[in-house]
Amino acid sequence: MKKMEKEFTSFIQEAGFLWGPSPEIYGGLAGFYTYGPLGKLLKNKVENSVRETFEKEGFGEIEAPTILPDIVWKASGHLETFNDRTISCSKCKSMFRADNLIEEKYNVSADTFSDKKILEFIKKKKIVCPTCKGWLNNKIETKNLMMKTKVGGQEASLRPETATVTYLPFKRMYNYFRKKLPFGVFQIGKVYRNEISPRQHVLRGREFTQAEGQIFIDPKEKNKWNKYKAIKNKTLPLWDHKNQKKESPPKKIKIEEAIKKGLIKSQAYAWCLWLAYKHFRNFGIPEEKIRIRQHFPNEKAFYAEDAWDIEVKLNNYGWIEMCGVHDRADYDLKQHSKHSKEKLEASRENGEKFTPHILEIAFGTDRATYTLLDLFYEKKDASKGKSTFKIPYHMAPIEVSILPLMKKEELLKISKDVSEDLSKEFTTSEDSTGSIGKRYLRNALSGTPYTVTIDFDSIKKKDVTLRDRDTEEQKRIKIKDLRGTIKNLFEGNLLFKKIK
Amino acid sequence: MKKMEKEFTSFIQEAGFLWGPSPEIYGGLAGFYTYGPLGKLLKNKVENSVRETFEKEGFGEIEAPTILPDIVWKASGHLETFNDRTISCSKCKSMFRADNLIEEKYNVSADTFSDKKILEFIKKKKIVCPTCKGWLNNKIETKNLMMKTKVGGQEASLRPETATVTYLPFKRMYNYFRKKLPFGVFQIGKVYRNEISPRQHVLRGREFTQAEGQIFIDPKEKNKWNKYKAIKNKTLPLWDHKNQKKESPPKKIKIEEAIKKGLIKSQAYAWCLWLAYKHFRNFGIPEEKIRIRQHFPNEKAFYAEDAWDIEVKLNNYGWIEMCGVHDRADYDLKQHSKHSKEKLEASRENGEKFTPHILEIAFGTDRATYTLLDLFYEKKDASKGKSTFKIPYHMAPIEVSILPLMKKEELLKISKDVSEDLSKEFTTSEDSTGSIGKRYLRNALSGTPYTVTIDFDSIKKKDVTLRDRDTEEQKRIKIKDLRGTIKNLFEGNLLFKKIK
Repeated sequence: MKKMEKEFTSFIQEAGFLWGPSPEIYGGLAGFYTYGPLGKLLKNKVENSVRETFEKEGFGEIEAPTILPDIVWKASGHLETFNDRTISCSKCKSMFRADNLIEEKYNVSADTFSDKKILEFIKKKKIVCPTCKGWLNNKIETKNLMMKTKVGGQEASLRPETATVTYLPFKRMYNYFRKKLPFGVFQIGKVYRNEISPRQHVLRGREFTQAEGQIFIDPKEKNKWNKYKAIKNKTLPLWDHKNQKKESPPKKIKIEEAIKKGLIKSQAYAWCLWLAYKHFRNFGIPEEKIRIRQHFPNEKAFYAEDAWDIEVKLNNYGWIEMCGVHDRADYDLKQHSKHSKEKLEASRENGEKFTPHILEIAFGTDRATYTLLDLFYEKKDASKGKSTFKIPYHMAPIEVSILPLMKKEELLKISKDVSEDLSKEFTTSEDSTGSIGKRYLRNALSGTPYTVTIDFDSIKKKDVTLRDRDTEEQKRIKIKDLRGTIKNLFEGNLLFKKIK
Repeated sequence: MKKMEKEFTSFIQEAGFLWGPSPEIYGGLAGFYTYGPLGKLLKNKVENSVRETFEKEGFGEIEAPTILPDIVWKASGHLETFNDRTISCSKCKSMFRADNLIEEKYNVSADTFSDKKILEFIKKKKIVCPTCKGWLNNKIETKNLMMKTKVGGQEASLRPETATVTYLPFKRMYNYFRKKLPFGVFQIGKVYRNEISPRQHVLRGREFTQAEGQIFIDPKEKNKWNKYKAIKNKTLPLWDHKNQKKESPPKKIKIEEAIKKGLIKSQAYAWCLWLAYKHFRNFGIPEEKIRIRQHFPNEKAFYAEDAWDIEVKLNNYGWIEMCGVHDRADYDLKQHSKHSKEKLEASRENGEKFTPHILEIAFGTDRATYTLLDLFYEKKDASKGKSTFKIPYHMAPIEVSILPLMKKEELLKISKDVSEDLSKEFTTSEDSTGSIGKRYLRNALSGTPYTVTIDFDSIKKKDVTLRDRDTEEQKRIKIKDLRGTIKNLFEGNLLFKKIK
């Protein structure tokens, strides 16, 4: 582990964000992690923002099982093709995902390489075993990633994504939405992949949470998307496969132009890409750290009409895929129709029957949570000030921290009342342990935007000190105005320095 | 399936609450269900209310893996003892949980029976196979309920509860809470049990969601619980094991008295029982439909100091266990300390080391969600009015429904604006499909408390009709006052009939 990565991992562990691999006291199982109280608050914030984004656009949330009988995974193709290509060390016998070994060192999409090309690349670049530095065997093997179980004696597998399980109740959903297309649904839930060599912390775990939205649409309506007008003049940082090959950078392109040029095939798909991009920007990720990468023709599934990934540049691991946006056409519903012998169709107003197309936005909430930690943690040497978690205020896990100056009954009483009032609106924490300076440091590491300090003046004057995380400015505020003031600060109706 | 149960199941399926067994198009796997959009909104409401209850009391939320290596389950005892006793049909070979077969028909706690007693009871009462009515074999077999998998070649199991995985990071949590006891943590997450014969819909599923809170406490502090004073005069409907044996009903007893009588052993445990009871009452479950049942001495685990269950009386299935509250003493931390060889201890101020005790509140959110559906769905024959889902207003999945009278552009525009404004504060749904009468019926089945209708008068007068679900009263309200009015209604600051 690099020094920076090590320091960062120790920060997220000690501050109570992420622990693992779990179970730590038993040595840990690679690819499994535990969110501590602070990390879980942050992950909830990420997931609630996903929920809000989808709900605002009229998507319905569903929750389907994480375990399904293998007949489903046979139909979806996962049992046969959801494989990784592995390579093993001739010396220590460790096994690795072959394409990742390359991608972690070189800025290429090795998953588009043939087996032969991978082996040649490894040979040419003299890539060795990351564990023991031994030579890698000149042989690629495939391993299926499905996690298997048995339910009442029947073969079943844990889902490796939420998508398939969202397609299955199509008929139920079609009825729920009163037989009108398009409709959108989403799921946020656990998925499981038997990764060969889990690495890069929660970025490549074996158990993780996916948030996936699906739009079911009449293919004839994909270019009559009524939300298109509002976004056609927006620009996106598109990195098409030609520019990737030429090693040219992504280009900012107007959505309308991207469609004209044939880079993007439909209005509805463009809107999905925009929604996903905007969602990541709303997390507070800077523009220059996001790009949208097109799949190579041999990288995307044969049935996919459009396939782009949103990538974010992390401090620890460079550019990482954060979100896939895919036009899966009618492939999935047709497959499941064939295997289940149930018609999965919709009707047009004129009575025509057809198989809807599916547009999909899929991303991992653990990756998003990790990204916020990675991008906004600012390490400083003790001599240069304090380390701070500078997460955008609206994404902070704890919003307001309440600190009674000392453990005196009068102060604790006010603290409790203030806490109760503020917690009606905000995520708060009350902290009376340790010196006030130490508690400020803790707040800085938790990324808490506002700190309320209760001192002896608070008893008579019924006011408190409010402190802003980034400027470290302080204002004296009446307790009765506190909740309203903080609300206005969060909603952007008030600037801290303008508080009177 | 009984007629009532059948009618109820068709209601929850058609209204979009719960579908299954999933995947339906492949015939379904027993014990797995899918929440439709309305059901998921309801389940989210249940889970958020759990979150609120625990957070208000200072518990921290964590999220730990659902899969753990078998060394953990060996230590916890699950691999050896997490079994069900089964009995099978001599004719059709179906297998059933023996105690459930009895409990579903007779109001006794058959899980306290010995194998011999179960067989005698079945013989005496002439209980036959529920599937084919054949005779049951005179033999009890045990089946382990753990769902097994392999991770990277290593034996592992899916967790059957969240509790164990909450105990494991004890040292991390102890540090996070600055080495101060007591502290509380909770988890809400999926668990898996390979139930022999999943029945009673989601009440006995194979995949379900547990919400479990744990308090880690110094055993010397269990009777110095500072929140005890506020609750000691409250009464609880306690059904101790003696009264169960005598077939006497539960008794309302003051908490202080229950402790004096030795029914409950500690203040801290009594507080947990109270918290759990209050939580279910807050759902709006009527007093007479809740009782708190003590475990029989031979029913509770040998190490448990106190063990009571909260039970709720359902329309479909009678009295059902909803929540277990257990004083697990130091058993779990000692077991895991022994097996992991890591010290799981805390320190007193005087430097003394000790193993904390664990108090636990554990319940399933699917059961709670189902309970709300079961208790508040009022079926009426078409001749006697309409069927309604009379869920308490604060638990309704959709809070406000917005109906433009007709699909005219002017009305749809107002509808959209109203919708956008209201959705800042409430869960809303906009519905412009079908006659207004049909849409009212749909709202009644969704349990939506308030309906806003936009008609042609709304264009000039800038007002709308607000309709109350239960009284069916209607008031005309200015659009600009709508959000505030509905907020006041929900918060209890305003009565509908008092709206001017």
